[in-house]
Amino acid sequence: MASRSSATIGLVQMRCTDSREENLHRALKGIAEAAEKGAQIVCLPELFGSLYFCQKQDPALFELAEPIPGHSSELLAQAAKKHQIVLISSLFEKRAPGLYHNTALVHGPNGGLLGMYRKMHIPDDPLFYEKYYFTPGDLGFKAIDTPFGKIGVLVCWDQWYPEAARLTALQGAQILFYPTAIGWHPAEREQFGNDQLTAWQLAQRAHALASGVYVAGVNRFGHEGDPKGGLIFWGHSFVSDPYARLIADAPHDRDACVIHQCDFALIEETRRNWPFLRDRRIDAYGGITNRFGTP
Amino acid sequence: MASRSSATIGLVQMRCTDSREENLHRALKGIAEAAEKGAQIVCLPELFGSLYFCQKQDPALFELAEPIPGHSSELLAQAAKKHQIVLISSLFEKRAPGLYHNTALVHGPNGGLLGMYRKMHIPDDPLFYEKYYFTPGDLGFKAIDTPFGKIGVLVCWDQWYPEAARLTALQGAQILFYPTAIGWHPAEREQFGNDQLTAWQLAQRAHALASGVYVAGVNRFGHEGDPKGGLIFWGHSFVSDPYARLIADAPHDRDACVIHQCDFALIEETRRNWPFLRDRRIDAYGGITNRFGTP
Repeated sequence: MASRSSATIGLVQMRCTDSREENLHRALKGIAEAAEKGAQIVCLPELFGSLYFCQKQDPALFELAEPIPGHSSELLAQAAKKHQIVLISSLFEKRAPGLYHNTALVHGPNGGLLGMYRKMHIPDDPLFYEKYYFTPGDLGFKAIDTPFGKIGVLVCWDQWYPEAARLTALQGAQILFYPTAIGWHPAEREQFGNDQLTAWQLAQRAHALASGVYVAGVNRFGHEGDPKGGLIFWGHSFVSDPYARLIADAPHDRDACVIHQCDFALIEETRRNWPFLRDRRIDAYGGITNRFGTP
Repeated sequence: MASRSSATIGLVQMRCTDSREENLHRALKGIAEAAEKGAQIVCLPELFGSLYFCQKQDPALFELAEPIPGHSSELLAQAAKKHQIVLISSLFEKRAPGLYHNTALVHGPNGGLLGMYRKMHIPDDPLFYEKYYFTPGDLGFKAIDTPFGKIGVLVCWDQWYPEAARLTALQGAQILFYPTAIGWHPAEREQFGNDQLTAWQLAQRAHALASGVYVAGVNRFGHEGDPKGGLIFWGHSFVSDPYARLIADAPHDRDACVIHQCDFALIEETRRNWPFLRDRRIDAYGGITNRFGTP
């Protein structure tokens, strides 16, 4: 596809409710706003179509899953076509009876599906019971060519893994998008909240730096679940440039439409000044595929 | 070796001159101060025995290299024994005529050599002409068992590579030490200086976070080379805890003896709360040994 000198990206930070139609409506509104502001590549938060249902294990919640193509993906494809954008979305995919994934879709300006990614790293922690719902992805790490640039999509828990970012960048991605659903446990927020938020952005800024790419994290916001417990999703959708500079950072508690023009010349400039890719010791990295120690 | 609940580390930030004896004297003084303050594992900056000679390519400068064991390593071994500490140092190693490395040594409390590491990633950039002097290391990434904890030693440019930190942590290292010589080009400092310093610490804090280990960076300070150009080494020796918190950060322009007690229980606590090691997709990381794209 055509080589471009920049791409304008749009991050739609939103609250989610228990109504799929309401969430789709809000997402479509956010997409329209981002496109209106010039965004060429728009990204929604992880699993924006529902509350973050993984706070509990309930077999009835598998009803939330949808086939691809399906109702939501069709609406998203239409939105991409209507606004002539690349649209990154995140769905609870029903692949087969009893087989579900946490899946990101990339639709192109003609409404076609340019690529999909199934979340590779699946968490399982108090109120984040994802291993119950999602089979780990089997599509690997890849870059997706779009008319506005080569992008990588990774999802939430993936963001803690330098391997995922590196492998995607090595496929040629210029921007890594991370649809996310991350929040504070209310009881922990006072003591650890700021450190957790800092660590979340820091990990992803480090990916930008290590591989000389842009990184965008797109989170939901709002309190979900038990009013006395549950999770407070912390927003703070952000963009890091290849120098690890935090060049956009949304508030923690409201809708936001983050727009940034990513200058691809800065990728080359950063990589020339800090040529990390030149010196990787690929002869000595084989142990990365070990679990721990020497097998 | 005995399992310990904590280790007190000491980072000796110092200025270097063109006199080896003066540098050794200053280093020994810094080691004594750190030990006096309770440090059990002490780390010196990269190539502390000389000015940062890699600002130019000059065959005469290979005279600065020393065999191991040799004059400097013997003095360092004695210092480790005298203070009953683990001592991490960095030397320009003459391995054979025409074969030189940038090498880190780890001496134990009895003066014996517990391990050595040869810098794996070698930079080569304006005023950092290291590829001229140093053959890339051939010892790989490893953890070194000491009486005060299991440590990893990596050197300067290695700090930009998540692979190096991960591989060392996977060998069981609890603390990663990075002897370093990094500084500003005076002409760039105003525009980029702060971003460069931030990026340097951020990259290493991200290693701490990704693998749940402590990280310590130990830098020299001071202006070396052409008074109108040269390099201003930026100090800022620091410690990051496994949560990526910057828990110590030295000034940019003076001697510093940074002391921190690393609580190993925090490694387990952090890894339980953010169990990244549990979920690594080792089945899908093979591409890390590719240079770029799909070979």
